[in-house]
Amino acid sequence: MTDAPKEIDALIDMMARLPGLGPRSARRAVLHLIKKRGILMQPLAEAMQAVSQTARECLNCGNISTTDICSICASEKRANGEICVVEDVADLWAMERAAVFKGRYHVLGGTLSALDAIGPHELRIPKLVDRVKAERVSEVILALNATIDGQTTAHYIAENLEDRVRVTSLAQGVPIGGELDYLDDGTITAALKARKQV
Amino acid sequence: MTDAPKEIDALIDMMARLPGLGPRSARRAVLHLIKKRGILMQPLAEAMQAVSQTARECLNCGNISTTDICSICASEKRANGEICVVEDVADLWAMERAAVFKGRYHVLGGTLSALDAIGPHELRIPKLVDRVKAERVSEVILALNATIDGQTTAHYIAENLEDRVRVTSLAQGVPIGGELDYLDDGTITAALKARKQV
Repeated sequence: MTDAPKEIDALIDMMARLPGLGPRSARRAVLHLIKKRGILMQPLAEAMQAVSQTARECLNCGNISTTDICSICASEKRANGEICVVEDVADLWAMERAAVFKGRYHVLGGTLSALDAIGPHELRIPKLVDRVKAERVSEVILALNATIDGQTTAHYIAENLEDRVRVTSLAQGVPIGGELDYLDDGTITAALKARKQV
Repeated sequence: MTDAPKEIDALIDMMARLPGLGPRSARRAVLHLIKKRGILMQPLAEAMQAVSQTARECLNCGNISTTDICSICASEKRANGEICVVEDVADLWAMERAAVFKGRYHVLGGTLSALDAIGPHELRIPKLVDRVKAERVSEVILALNATIDGQTTAHYIAENLEDRVRVTSLAQGVPIGGELDYLDDGTITAALKARKQV
C-alpha cells in the first residue's frame, strides 16, 4: 500500500515478485522508472513485450532462445561430441562466460528431488538419453551444482549413461583465490582427496 | 554478456540499471521472467507500458499521479490548512503509510545542494511559496531527511516562510524500538536536548 494510483500499486506488486526485490526495493525501482519513463521505462516495457513473445526453450537442449533451435545447437563449430549437462540456463550462461567449453549443452531444468516429487521425467533426462543415442556424443560432462540434489541427479544420470558414453563431472577443490580459512570442511576434504603431484 | 539472444541481453542490461539490481540479479530476474512469461512478464510489460503513458507529476504538489491534480490535492477532506514538505515521493508514501497526517503535501524533488548546483529554482520551492500565498495554509511541516542537505533546505524554507505562516519540523529523537547502544551520538544529543517531563 503506497496510496499511489492503482496502476502504480499494481506495478509495484508485480515488481516485488521478482527474485531479489522486496516491497521496499520494488517501490524504489518503480519510482526510478517513473522518473525516467521516457528513457528507461518505455524501452524496458517494449523489451519485455518483445522477449515475452519471442523467448522459448531450445527443442534440443532446453537453452533459452528466440528460435526453435538455439544458436549453440545450430552451430556446427560446437559439434565436438561433448555435452555439458547443467541444471539451469543461468549455469549455462556461467559456463559460457568462462568461455572454455567448446561443445554443446543440455539444460535439465532442475534436479531430481524426492521431496518435491521431481523425477527424471519432470526433467529433460529422457531427452538427454535420446541425444546420446542419436548424436555422435563422445563425452557427457556433468556440471551440476555441488548440492545434495545436484549430486543425486549426477549419480542417476551417470548410472544411466555410463554403458554408452564416457561420463565425467567437474573437479571439486579449492576455488581460485580461495582462502583455506574460509572454506568448509567438505571442500577441504574433497580437495585433499583429489590432490595432485606438483 | 551472457551469450543469450541479443533481445534478452538488452533486457538484462536495462534491468541492471534499476536501483538495487546489478548485472547478476538482473540476469536472475530476467530468467525468472522468461520462465513465467505468461503469468508475470506479459502483465508486467503491459503494466509498465500503461504507467509510462499515464504517470505524471501533480501540477500542484509534485506527487506522482495519473491525473493533472493528484487524489490528495483533489480531496476536500485533506484541505485542513497543513502542508507537509517532503523531498521525494517515496517520503510522501512513507508518511501516508503511517496514516497520521491528514493535510496535503508538497514534494520538493530533492534538496538544495551547492555541490550539485541545485538552487531553490531547481526544486519546487517557488511553487511552495505561491501555495502558501494562494491556499489557506495555517502550518508548513518540514518532513525533510535529517541529512546536512535536508536540514539546509529546511532552514532555507523556514527563513522564507516564517513571516507568513507557522513553520514546524518533525521531532528528532530515539526511534520507537531503538536501542541507545546502537544510536549515533547526534541522535542521542538531539533526544537529550528535546527531553520531556514524563
